Amino acid sequence: MEILKKYIRDIPDFPKKGVIFKDITTLLKDKKMFTKVISALAKKYKPMGIEKVVAVEARGFIFGAALAHALKAGFVPVRKEKKLPHKTIKETYKLEYGTDVVEIHADALEKGEKVIVIDDLLATGGTLCAACQLVKKLKADIVEVVTIIELSYLGGRKKLKKYNYNSLVVY
Amino acid sequence: MEILKKYIRDIPDFPKKGVIFKDITTLLKDKKMFTKVISALAKKYKPMGIEKVVAVEARGFIFGAALAHALKAGFVPVRKEKKLPHKTIKETYKLEYGTDVVEIHADALEKGEKVIVIDDLLATGGTLCAACQLVKKLKADIVEVVTIIELSYLGGRKKLKKYNYNSLVVY
Repeated sequence: MEILKKYIRDIPDFPKKGVIFKDITTLLKDKKMFTKVISALAKKYKPMGIEKVVAVEARGFIFGAALAHALKAGFVPVRKEKKLPHKTIKETYKLEYGTDVVEIHADALEKGEKVIVIDDLLATGGTLCAACQLVKKLKADIVEVVTIIELSYLGGRKKLKKYNYNSLVVY
Repeated sequence: MEILKKYIRDIPDFPKKGVIFKDITTLLKDKKMFTKVISALAKKYKPMGIEKVVAVEARGFIFGAALAHALKAGFVPVRKEKKLPHKTIKETYKLEYGTDVVEIHADALEKGEKVIVIDDLLATGGTLCAACQLVKKLKADIVEVVTIIELSYLGGRKKLKKYNYNSLVVY
């Protein structure tokens, strides 16, 4: 969906010097484009019998929740440490400097359930890969991993090679 | 929708001692109930010509994005300070101890646009009231403010008396 690029805004030096941030709020606020993105994803995944959509905090929640509703599926959040209130399992992953942790509720998924894992953007793939590890630990079946944007020059796709991976727009 | 109470889990002492946290992840993961909640909201707001759904980070994004898609409306995030990348306007509000800040993109809404403001839960109403102030500063028209859960004993409804306010389940 190359047309999406018209609705994604470049923000230089955010959140830090030298980074060009892809701002999707300009896409989200456009009712036609937001509808179009979710409908396109729903059309693809509807025939696959997806039972739950797993989404990564916080922008991933936006696409994930809309997609879950469009598929009449359940929604499962993956969050940063200490945000989920019940018993969780954790996954630690590397950042440029140091590490970070994501969590999922231990009772969020059933064994063999068909799920989509979604986030807004694939950069180096650290967070998304950790989210997939959590889903695998709960023995659910990852039908596909999807992001709206893929920053191909950061090579995140390689980290996800165990999974089917799909992105709507590639930079 | 009293039936929702069966799908909302009480977590004692989260995020701190003495607080009983209402965990909505048990509702979200249930595909029938998540569909039911969003469809009920969409049925109510569809005839009102809602153009955008404004949602508060992060759990508000889940209900807000699904509702926006169901209404074929745009989606606008209200976030904590320094999370939104472009030019924002800010609103400071009081917490039990100290203050907090929420922001919205200055170009997120047009004058007179019909919007719904949504969050998962109404407690004292500080955040939601600040979010509404941001929407008013951008001169959009708040058709209704809605939360899934209302903790009526915390009196947040009073803070929202300038607006139409709707909740699905009251404790």
